Amino acid sequence: MTSNPLSHIRIVMVQTFHPGNIGSAARAMKTMGLSDLVLVDPRDYPSDQATAMAAGATDVLDSVRVVKTLDEAIEDCQLVMATSARTRSHPWPIKEVREAAPQIMQEAHAGKVAIMFGPERMGLHNEHLRKAHVHMDIPGNPDYPVLNIAAAIQVICYECFMANRQPIKHNEKAYPKVMELNGFYEHLESTLNEVGFINKALQQLFSECIC
Amino acid sequence: MTSNPLSHIRIVMVQTFHPGNIGSAARAMKTMGLSDLVLVDPRDYPSDQATAMAAGATDVLDSVRVVKTLDEAIEDCQLVMATSARTRSHPWPIKEVREAAPQIMQEAHAGKVAIMFGPERMGLHNEHLRKAHVHMDIPGNPDYPVLNIAAAIQVICYECFMANRQPIKHNEKAYPKVMELNGFYEHLESTLNEVGFINKALQQLFSECIC
Repeated sequence: MTSNPLSHIRIVMVQTFHPGNIGSAARAMKTMGLSDLVLVDPRDYPSDQATAMAAGATDVLDSVRVVKTLDEAIEDCQLVMATSARTRSHPWPIKEVREAAPQIMQEAHAGKVAIMFGPERMGLHNEHLRKAHVHMDIPGNPDYPVLNIAAAIQVICYECFMANRQPIKHNEKAYPKVMELNGFYEHLESTLNEVGFINKALQQLFSECIC
Repeated sequence: MTSNPLSHIRIVMVQTFHPGNIGSAARAMKTMGLSDLVLVDPRDYPSDQATAMAAGATDVLDSVRVVKTLDEAIEDCQLVMATSARTRSHPWPIKEVREAAPQIMQEAHAGKVAIMFGPERMGLHNEHLRKAHVHMDIPGNPDYPVLNIAAAIQVICYECFMANRQPIKHNEKAYPKVMELNGFYEHLESTLNEVGFINKALQQLFSECIC
């Protein structure tokens, strides 16, 4: 891939409640050179409030893509990052954004990277978090780690901008995209089924355990 | 000084126009462990909009101090930082916030540090900028470096939080405060006048040149 790797980073806002936050997010992105915004099932968009809060970044809103499901938002990405509050208990390891940003920029030289943000009050559900390759958070006050969603997008885009100025070992090898990996897993499962390798009863039990 | 040095950093918002930005700033501060907010001549405060945007950081607003002049806001500080867009032409050298943050934290171990933010549209006037010891900016998209004021406060507080986790050479020597330095300059001027060292006509000419 050519062009500025910052343009290969996609901000994915899942079920955002306040349209003003979508506008503020667009502004935050543009201040750091990002422009690819995808909204998954927003409550209220388009909205005058979003346009007002975007200020001089309405061009980001003009090219926004609105989709129904998270899968549609990330299928052409080779790296999917989830943002999460460290206070939540979940089984995945978590990186701080300053540590994660160089990895994001390295992957953005070769393909698309998605960074997911959940609804304002609840954050991403486990069903969303499970689709991410890496989880990250923004360090802060342990007694009040509650950044506004647009403020969190500002900090993360800023860290990407800063990491993009550092010499990065370019990753020219394009990793498989989410849609390609999904296709592989489906094919693998049907093949293992056909040859009788998978015990249906055990498979059912297994999927109940991990869901 | 004891206690957490983050509590010795004062955010000074000068002539803020939108009260919602004051609330968002309070929230941004609290997420990074800051709590000292001073408003210089705000257009509309107190305000329900500020309270709503503060979310769980209304305690920061409860202890906010509102003053008429910038001098009142910074007189007990030993380091005064001004935030400024790099695109503006002014004669002062400017540091990036990541470079400035360790200096802020070092000084905050020994005394109070003020970080000034100007009105939303215009930023700080030269008369404000002149009162700062150090000017700093947030790197970003040169074609649209226009961070929302609360977003800028979020990034700067975040950088202070990150710098506070690093080992810092403690500055135990308290530098003179702004009010002490002002007193010194006034005394110096009156003494030089009394002994006839200052040529009144030249002094007038000189102050016209630097204002």
